[in-house]
Amino acid sequence: MTEAELAGLTTQQAARLIRERKLSPLELTRTCLDRIRRHNSELHAFVTVLEEPVLEEARQAEQTLMRKDRVGLLHGVPLALKDCFAIQGVRMTGGSKLLANNVPKQDCTVVERLRKAGALFVGTLNMHEFALGATTANPHYGEARNPWEHDRIPGGSSGGSAVAVAASMCLGSMGTDAGGSVRLPAALCGIVGLKPTYGRVSRNGTLPLSFSLDHSGPMTRTVADAALMLEIVAGADPFDIDCSKREVPNYLEALTGQIDGLKVGLPKEYLADAMDDEVRAAFTKALAVLQNGGAVVEEVSLPRSHFGPHALVAIALSETSALHAADLRSHPDQYSDSMRALLYAGTLIPARRYVQAGLARAALIEDQRAALRRSDVLALPTVVVPAPRVGETAVKLGGRTVNVDAALPRLTLPFNLSGLPAISVPCGLTGEGLPIGLQIIGKPFAEATILNVAHAYERNTSWHERRPTL
Amino acid sequence: MTEAELAGLTTQQAARLIRERKLSPLELTRTCLDRIRRHNSELHAFVTVLEEPVLEEARQAEQTLMRKDRVGLLHGVPLALKDCFAIQGVRMTGGSKLLANNVPKQDCTVVERLRKAGALFVGTLNMHEFALGATTANPHYGEARNPWEHDRIPGGSSGGSAVAVAASMCLGSMGTDAGGSVRLPAALCGIVGLKPTYGRVSRNGTLPLSFSLDHSGPMTRTVADAALMLEIVAGADPFDIDCSKREVPNYLEALTGQIDGLKVGLPKEYLADAMDDEVRAAFTKALAVLQNGGAVVEEVSLPRSHFGPHALVAIALSETSALHAADLRSHPDQYSDSMRALLYAGTLIPARRYVQAGLARAALIEDQRAALRRSDVLALPTVVVPAPRVGETAVKLGGRTVNVDAALPRLTLPFNLSGLPAISVPCGLTGEGLPIGLQIIGKPFAEATILNVAHAYERNTSWHERRPTL
Repeated sequence: MTEAELAGLTTQQAARLIRERKLSPLELTRTCLDRIRRHNSELHAFVTVLEEPVLEEARQAEQTLMRKDRVGLLHGVPLALKDCFAIQGVRMTGGSKLLANNVPKQDCTVVERLRKAGALFVGTLNMHEFALGATTANPHYGEARNPWEHDRIPGGSSGGSAVAVAASMCLGSMGTDAGGSVRLPAALCGIVGLKPTYGRVSRNGTLPLSFSLDHSGPMTRTVADAALMLEIVAGADPFDIDCSKREVPNYLEALTGQIDGLKVGLPKEYLADAMDDEVRAAFTKALAVLQNGGAVVEEVSLPRSHFGPHALVAIALSETSALHAADLRSHPDQYSDSMRALLYAGTLIPARRYVQAGLARAALIEDQRAALRRSDVLALPTVVVPAPRVGETAVKLGGRTVNVDAALPRLTLPFNLSGLPAISVPCGLTGEGLPIGLQIIGKPFAEATILNVAHAYERNTSWHERRPTL
Repeated sequence: MTEAELAGLTTQQAARLIRERKLSPLELTRTCLDRIRRHNSELHAFVTVLEEPVLEEARQAEQTLMRKDRVGLLHGVPLALKDCFAIQGVRMTGGSKLLANNVPKQDCTVVERLRKAGALFVGTLNMHEFALGATTANPHYGEARNPWEHDRIPGGSSGGSAVAVAASMCLGSMGTDAGGSVRLPAALCGIVGLKPTYGRVSRNGTLPLSFSLDHSGPMTRTVADAALMLEIVAGADPFDIDCSKREVPNYLEALTGQIDGLKVGLPKEYLADAMDDEVRAAFTKALAVLQNGGAVVEEVSLPRSHFGPHALVAIALSETSALHAADLRSHPDQYSDSMRALLYAGTLIPARRYVQAGLARAALIEDQRAALRRSDVLALPTVVVPAPRVGETAVKLGGRTVNVDAALPRLTLPFNLSGLPAISVPCGLTGEGLPIGLQIIGKPFAEATILNVAHAYERNTSWHERRPTL
């Protein structure tokens, strides 16, 4: 296979070729390492490249293939993980200086499960410092760049996870999402990002940002790849008390592509807000694709949607400043200036504001539930603008100047507050060649439904096949 | 019947006599009103006495009895409610000046259900201002007094509810409990007080103090009366989203008095703390009564019990200051000095402390759950001291001086943090004639179990038959 062919493989394709002995895990891994070597100094996707360890893992994967008839669903497939998932013996920085030499003694539950499925780990991925931001302009490990246009940000906080998959430096990755950090960089980099229901995937061994908002989820090239990875990592875990004991369905089997009669709700308040014209046009076209498949599109109302941003900021900063209180006191110099300022701001939030934010959150959840009693899923763009330029702190939106960190997660954060599952799937490119994402939101634990809707969209379009030229 | 006989009736006895047409609701109501007239100016149990309305209700109850064969379980029985349960058309002050003229337009769910069961409402009961304290020294509606010794406090915040039942001014009452406010005055006044599991009784239409800690529960002369009242008021309510949909068992049927083989855990950390000698002696004797009934007493550990008081204060003050924020800004003069000081203190709690308190709370819950995997119930004294003197701000405990507001709820508040059901039942009198309470704590929604343990204790003792001389 040529490098282009190898680089174009989905996780599923690669896993199947490996199982059929038509593709060598070592060859595939070397291709990933080559691409990392060539592009990482420019893109800053990886914090730590596990070159020797992953080559050794690949060799072992080959030997296992010769010995065994049956292997795991991801056998021999090189993945990578946001640098906040613990891998035994590999430093986990959380994108911070504070944890630059932090080496976990145990795999986190997600890594344990991926490893059991046969996956290889090619490295750890760059992220916004402690996941508290949407740009992945990391002051310690490099400003991550968007592979489609290098002067653009990839979004964040799981920026490296999106870049590595979009630039074929690995076949799939995991990110974390407390306000949009999986879906948002996935959208800006033209890949699939899935935030499962709160409690669907164990957070044992992942670095927390905000325990009531944090979710972990797969970032992949296709919807089927996301379904496959979710199936592997989801499910009960005694080490995470927030982790649900619900059975994990067969997500791949759910991808029938049939959406005839499915009710798609369009939250009118969000759609009435200012939005980039090309994003809106791509979203409208995406809805037409769903309608062609038989979906029924209807307007729904989330009247208290404006509570979202304030509630999210109060909750996230309160929770993260509680987590960082001791370190911030003893090692203030280990935080970047902007992170330190945010944490100090968090320290000053009065408890009654956090309590009020919780009440606002409850109102928002009630609205979303009511909308999802009428509709099967909700649909929105993932991000209201395409990727901003590196260093840009504000974007123009409907004649107003809006802070980048406020603009980017606007349509993703409501579903962190509610914990509902949501997926972003590529749905277009702007005139300048920047990716646009379509977001599908589902009922609690209805990952199978949103995966199927995204799959139905994906198989009638070709956006997921487009790749950035590096 | 003589006044003494009437005043000695339990709710169950009165309801039965009324159903059998052997007792007139009007006569019983007049007896209550007489006693209120004679003693309320001294005891300050009632805020509002509904003299004319309750006499009219009693007359109607008599007429219904003549017309109908079947009547409700509390038909014609005069009850009273802490002044934070909404009764349509009756002012509900919450013990505050701010709400002195607040007249609810609708019955709260508890009142609706009691009314449907045929209960009469003789008035609203004094409480600590906005329920934020343990003495019921109310600056607006009078300092409530302990009927056993008038220079002693009844405890709080549901002080009036305990006094009215202990002094036979009504046959039963309802209180609210965010840190011990039902059990604590019940113990200090020699009656039964039950805090059900969080979510067992609807809070729709009751004035909140702290939404994550608030519980409503019955205060009665006997355990069977508490079982009867709980059965009536418990159960799903669409108007309270925190209200559980679990079916309500028949609590009266559960009172078999059989406790053979029941495992009673004694939390060693709490029992190692300083405690009044007479309280400890009464508790030890109470355990012997349970053992005579066949219960197996064993030590259990709640190692993180010391988190409790700090967590409770941070959570209660944060939540209550969120609820009062607007009124405190616009009407600071409508709060007493001490209440205003507490609310301002609450306003200054940083959100990260509230978050940390939530984590401490989770640890405490985990400990209690672990203990209740080994034991069927836990047992503790309800309060570590007998009723302090009116005006006393501190008590001596193990050679130390402890603030009254900190000492009184010490053994009740852990079960507000966890939401577990707990009941206080009279278990002795000090040399000075002050009541002592035994507390039994159960697993989530195991009200039937703790009621039965308390009943087994009660039927082998006569403390519940003792009455204060007025």
